[in-house]
Amino acid sequence: MQINASIITIGDELLIGQTIDTNSAWIGQQLNAIGIWVKRRVAVGDVKQDIVQALQQEEKSSNIIIITGGLGPTADDITKPLLCEYFGGQLVQNDAVKKHVIAFFEKRKRPILDVNVAQAMVPNVCEVLWNEMGSAPGMWFTKNNVVYISLPGVPFEMKKIMTDIALPKILTQFKTPTVIHKTACTAGKGESFIAVYLKQFEQDLPNYIKLAYLPQLGGVKLRLTGINVSEQIMQSYFEQMCASIKHLIFSYKDSTLEKIIAEQLINKNLTISFAESCTGGAICAKMTTIPGASTFCKGSIVSYTDDAKINVLGLSSVAVLQQDVVTETIATQMANSALLKFTSDIAVSITGYLDSATQIEETKKGLIWICITNKKLSKTFSANMPYERLQNTELAIATVLNNIRIFIADNY
Amino acid sequence: MQINASIITIGDELLIGQTIDTNSAWIGQQLNAIGIWVKRRVAVGDVKQDIVQALQQEEKSSNIIIITGGLGPTADDITKPLLCEYFGGQLVQNDAVKKHVIAFFEKRKRPILDVNVAQAMVPNVCEVLWNEMGSAPGMWFTKNNVVYISLPGVPFEMKKIMTDIALPKILTQFKTPTVIHKTACTAGKGESFIAVYLKQFEQDLPNYIKLAYLPQLGGVKLRLTGINVSEQIMQSYFEQMCASIKHLIFSYKDSTLEKIIAEQLINKNLTISFAESCTGGAICAKMTTIPGASTFCKGSIVSYTDDAKINVLGLSSVAVLQQDVVTETIATQMANSALLKFTSDIAVSITGYLDSATQIEETKKGLIWICITNKKLSKTFSANMPYERLQNTELAIATVLNNIRIFIADNY
Repeated sequence: MQINASIITIGDELLIGQTIDTNSAWIGQQLNAIGIWVKRRVAVGDVKQDIVQALQQEEKSSNIIIITGGLGPTADDITKPLLCEYFGGQLVQNDAVKKHVIAFFEKRKRPILDVNVAQAMVPNVCEVLWNEMGSAPGMWFTKNNVVYISLPGVPFEMKKIMTDIALPKILTQFKTPTVIHKTACTAGKGESFIAVYLKQFEQDLPNYIKLAYLPQLGGVKLRLTGINVSEQIMQSYFEQMCASIKHLIFSYKDSTLEKIIAEQLINKNLTISFAESCTGGAICAKMTTIPGASTFCKGSIVSYTDDAKINVLGLSSVAVLQQDVVTETIATQMANSALLKFTSDIAVSITGYLDSATQIEETKKGLIWICITNKKLSKTFSANMPYERLQNTELAIATVLNNIRIFIADNY
Repeated sequence: MQINASIITIGDELLIGQTIDTNSAWIGQQLNAIGIWVKRRVAVGDVKQDIVQALQQEEKSSNIIIITGGLGPTADDITKPLLCEYFGGQLVQNDAVKKHVIAFFEKRKRPILDVNVAQAMVPNVCEVLWNEMGSAPGMWFTKNNVVYISLPGVPFEMKKIMTDIALPKILTQFKTPTVIHKTACTAGKGESFIAVYLKQFEQDLPNYIKLAYLPQLGGVKLRLTGINVSEQIMQSYFEQMCASIKHLIFSYKDSTLEKIIAEQLINKNLTISFAESCTGGAICAKMTTIPGASTFCKGSIVSYTDDAKINVLGLSSVAVLQQDVVTETIATQMANSALLKFTSDIAVSITGYLDSATQIEETKKGLIWICITNKKLSKTFSANMPYERLQNTELAIATVLNNIRIFIADNY
């Protein structure tokens, strides 16, 4: 039997867009990983009748209802008394929670206010889920075989209670299926292009295995999810899926281009440097998001203006001033300069017109030239970015990274 | 009369937590800005009966239903046929959309597949909302005085259609209240710090004016929203609010630090350059997100390793190799080098330990040194970033930018 869950998040700040709801995605991941299907996610404001209505609607179709938010000490947090009433209980003082709240504030040398002590009042019809990281306890209610779990909205408090208490308790109370995920990351082509290759494969999948497309700028992640299936069978379907799009796959596990390039560089003991123009330093910044990047990434010279290309990168002023700076020649000179100055094994350059609103010829809008070079050979190529300034920058970064990955795979 | 809206997001990827739903927050902000109350947000999977059920539930209490996702070209996108059936229409080819889809793919030199051409099939009971940025058109349906707006899930496509077409159309069809927003952007202090100053002010606000805190790393945006109130009264409350936190405000309108700095530099006809270490190029990249950045931003030398600091930035090898590289001395030398090499009016450097997982002394974790210099004077200062690698990087960028803003304001 499929176990369904609903997630109800409470708070005006979610509805007016002040807060991006990251809790729901995290909870969804955790439940999915243990084979529970999140059927619906609902966000409602701090309005009593809206919360009650959400509970009534969700309990019709879900076995587990996870409620986050609305448990803090401020006046507008109405969730606890509401849940108490909904499940026909009374608020009573929980001595252990009271002791914890007092110790919690004393440790932080913060004054203990009445509203804080009131957090030790809990419905006598729930099981308290201990909140080690904060002062608002989680609560577990059961009614007509539906489980209701109320958690604080602060992400690290919620995660700790879920991981340590709620998820293990769910596993003891529900017979969950076995779930296996297999992910392949692709770059260079869009969702619809890949769908052509995988159409038949997807149609032929048994109903206990599902394929998800996760598009991003510059590529698509493909995730196979199997329910109650053996690792061997999953692996065989995964290999079948990958076989037809092998040339597009850069990772057979969930990863990113910058992580894969970092692995390549570390494994082959190589260093890299950059000469960036239109990306403004964002490619080097992306590579340095990887912990330990200083072992393989030497840096970047960002030459955003003509005079910086001449004075800092050392390109010839004739080349820069007498011709267009988005050319194969300039890209090549930029990469060569970075290779020399940083004495890295590989150097990469990009120059381009990423802002579609710039006053240039229509055919040059979105044009980029890229050069990847080492001491022995250079690869240059151009591409056209079809969007606006920010998306074009993202897509240009992905394009450069994917070509670095291929360059290293081909030449080392 | 209060106009209610519901947001329905469609896609299994949202429920299993593969994607964090940023669309809903953005849509919530936009609707809130024109005086429409988002009553509920619901996420459902790619399951026909779940989508239909969500439509039926939301139309009971909302005047406007915004649906995002489920419009892509792959097999699992079931939203369009479902909406067509739900509103009693038939899918017919829209010649203008077909022309647009074909031109869209031709421009990108991508093959046009049947699934792409099928995107030109639209229900004959909707008004097409032109999708300039992508191939899946938006759709506007009306039934029993409820408006249903279906949009693609790709954020920049969705935003463009909302901004250019859907929101203006909503304004013509609904009598929205007069909403006035006044925003002040602050930097340097957190939400709870500012709340101390504004507690009394917030308590004394009339019920038709609301204060929202919009926290970000490095600062808080404060937004006053007045419903059916005069500009004069709003301005007076806004000035009252700003008076007590004047020293923290960097903009009296909704803006960003990089925009404000760009305005300062352009107005004063100044140029800037960077020497970055721990931020990997991200500060320069942030400045170059501003259109026309080449008039004021010359570039950055990213020296991520010791040898890059010596060979590319030209720091003395003694200084780099014989002492810690996160010091006031190194920061000063880095900024001086950038000033010289880029011949900019102002140069800014940063060096730091942003990764809390790095094996260094506990007291150095999160430490950054910053130098801002021009031909006449240098300002140096240090700060401690309390989070992990990525958040620390964001906070370091905000810290540097805020200090550049102050430096320019103080010295030019």
